[in-house]
Amino acid sequence: MVEHRVYQALAQPVVGHLDPYFFEVVCEVRELLRNVFGTRNEITLAVSGTGSSGMETAVGNFVEPESKFAVFANGFFCDRLTEMGKRQGANVVRLEKPWGEVFEADEAADFIDREKPDVVAFVHAETSAGALQNPKPICDAAHQADAIVIADTVTSLGAVPVNVDENGIDVAYSCTQKGLSCPPGLSPITVSPRAADRLKARKTPVREWYLDLKLLIDYYDGRKYHHTASATMFYGLCEALRTIMDEGMEQRFERHVHAHKLLVKAFVDLGLTMHVREGHRIPNLNTPRVPVGVDDAKVRKHLLDHHGIEIAGGFGQLAGKIFRIGLMGPLATESNVEFFMEAFREALGR
Amino acid sequence: MVEHRVYQALAQPVVGHLDPYFFEVVCEVRELLRNVFGTRNEITLAVSGTGSSGMETAVGNFVEPESKFAVFANGFFCDRLTEMGKRQGANVVRLEKPWGEVFEADEAADFIDREKPDVVAFVHAETSAGALQNPKPICDAAHQADAIVIADTVTSLGAVPVNVDENGIDVAYSCTQKGLSCPPGLSPITVSPRAADRLKARKTPVREWYLDLKLLIDYYDGRKYHHTASATMFYGLCEALRTIMDEGMEQRFERHVHAHKLLVKAFVDLGLTMHVREGHRIPNLNTPRVPVGVDDAKVRKHLLDHHGIEIAGGFGQLAGKIFRIGLMGPLATESNVEFFMEAFREALGR
Repeated sequence: MVEHRVYQALAQPVVGHLDPYFFEVVCEVRELLRNVFGTRNEITLAVSGTGSSGMETAVGNFVEPESKFAVFANGFFCDRLTEMGKRQGANVVRLEKPWGEVFEADEAADFIDREKPDVVAFVHAETSAGALQNPKPICDAAHQADAIVIADTVTSLGAVPVNVDENGIDVAYSCTQKGLSCPPGLSPITVSPRAADRLKARKTPVREWYLDLKLLIDYYDGRKYHHTASATMFYGLCEALRTIMDEGMEQRFERHVHAHKLLVKAFVDLGLTMHVREGHRIPNLNTPRVPVGVDDAKVRKHLLDHHGIEIAGGFGQLAGKIFRIGLMGPLATESNVEFFMEAFREALGR
Repeated sequence: MVEHRVYQALAQPVVGHLDPYFFEVVCEVRELLRNVFGTRNEITLAVSGTGSSGMETAVGNFVEPESKFAVFANGFFCDRLTEMGKRQGANVVRLEKPWGEVFEADEAADFIDREKPDVVAFVHAETSAGALQNPKPICDAAHQADAIVIADTVTSLGAVPVNVDENGIDVAYSCTQKGLSCPPGLSPITVSPRAADRLKARKTPVREWYLDLKLLIDYYDGRKYHHTASATMFYGLCEALRTIMDEGMEQRFERHVHAHKLLVKAFVDLGLTMHVREGHRIPNLNTPRVPVGVDDAKVRKHLLDHHGIEIAGGFGQLAGKIFRIGLMGPLATESNVEFFMEAFREALGR
């Protein structure tokens, strides 16, 4: 759900991609993104594409051909990271877990000690399964091995604390349409000084000119023409970030946790089991298991046709096994949980 | 300039990237894009990025490593095509001309016969210089040599006939913020059946997952999730294309030519020389030479400060030598030419 004020911002008159006013907006966006990412990284900007373009920017700039790329694999987006790494010509190694589980400190350390990768990647909030990974142990182990860490924060940013600096994440990317409650179209990304050094030392040119971070930095820092960034999208993102600051980040995170707890309690009361164990759940993406004998597609169709509520089903190894219920941004409220549960109970026939 | 109705469309409520309504909008956009491109190509869609992402899509999908890529080089964006081709690992060969000149049929044929490239690229309307290239002779020569042709139509689409099918262009990409009069954020692209066969026969995987045309086709044709396309941007583009259809494409093209002729006459009356010779000028991007003794930066600053009019200067080999004056979309009218010329005469002190 996108707030009215964000829609209004999108309809403001366009200015050029080198206009001084455009850079005013860009500066504000970059500073507010540092706040939500929890970082002081100078290199914090928004790529002109959707969340997956942020993933491609991270992999394309930091995973060199022939380098070793270690992926913590417990969901769909870990597979996408793997695919992008392979296309870059890297030697990709994976530590596998069933979708919905997370990696413990000793598992992370063992894997990284054994593989000695150049770059490590994990997904902070795996939207395909509903599991929230603790970034700290992965980052600690990676830094011990002098590897840099890429974190996919597509589903977490703006709804869950990401704490880039505190956790030691080197590269984090996200999208605008989930925790930031903005339409899709830009991909926020932040890069630590450590990762920036790695970029400077890179031996081969980045293959994707459009997503070449050095050129993007020259554009956003040096105002040197690269591509025609969309003022419209920056207006929207700026207003969405202001909305978050107006509420207060802590308040926003707490609101998400509060709504999540109410929702989980309602599921349990209804006899449903959560797919992810307590303490590792994404507050804004809830994944109860589909009860035995229930056709999840029918339930989802009923919700959409009769209540205008769109929830997602599982896919991949979780196809037909879980519901995926987003509860984020303006929707993460008590009354919305009640509204949803009433419809959900009806759809389930309980 | 963006029409009010396009701004209104941008503020419409977002729907999901797999929502049936989203695909209704996408279908309309694809059909209207076929109209402005002048093609019946099935593969006609919009990439989720700006015009340069369209260039990267064209080069990344069709220029394979080790292949021969022939670029007609007469401006800044030809250099960008060259750079992207090199990053893909292709053998890039160039036919050079001073910025502002175009390539004749015999020159195109000689170059292609000599080099026997796999892929040929040219820029239809070179915004850095103001020259409009006739696509036909390049496409004819390329097809004789069994090469496919990429055309950059960033500045031409929507303001000048592109006639993809009639000219024999295999791959054309564009942007939304020039001739289509929409904010930037998407890159229309069209691919001929010939080029589609080439894509199917490709031996190496496309390195850019985000811009992989096969995956984009599976998404837009097969509704198979790839990335989260922005409903907002599609709403805007759809409305911009409807606006063009409401006016009529022929009428729109004629309006641009009419305004262009008035503007050129006014420049000549003022004693200015056009940088590009008659018959090869881009109607919507006019490049008079800066008169001797005139500081172009001062003129541009005066126009911006006193009249709120933003025109561009030359760069690269034309730095300080030309003005670049956009006259497109809703702005391409007689009254705007008069409005501009009054301010321009004052800024020049004539």
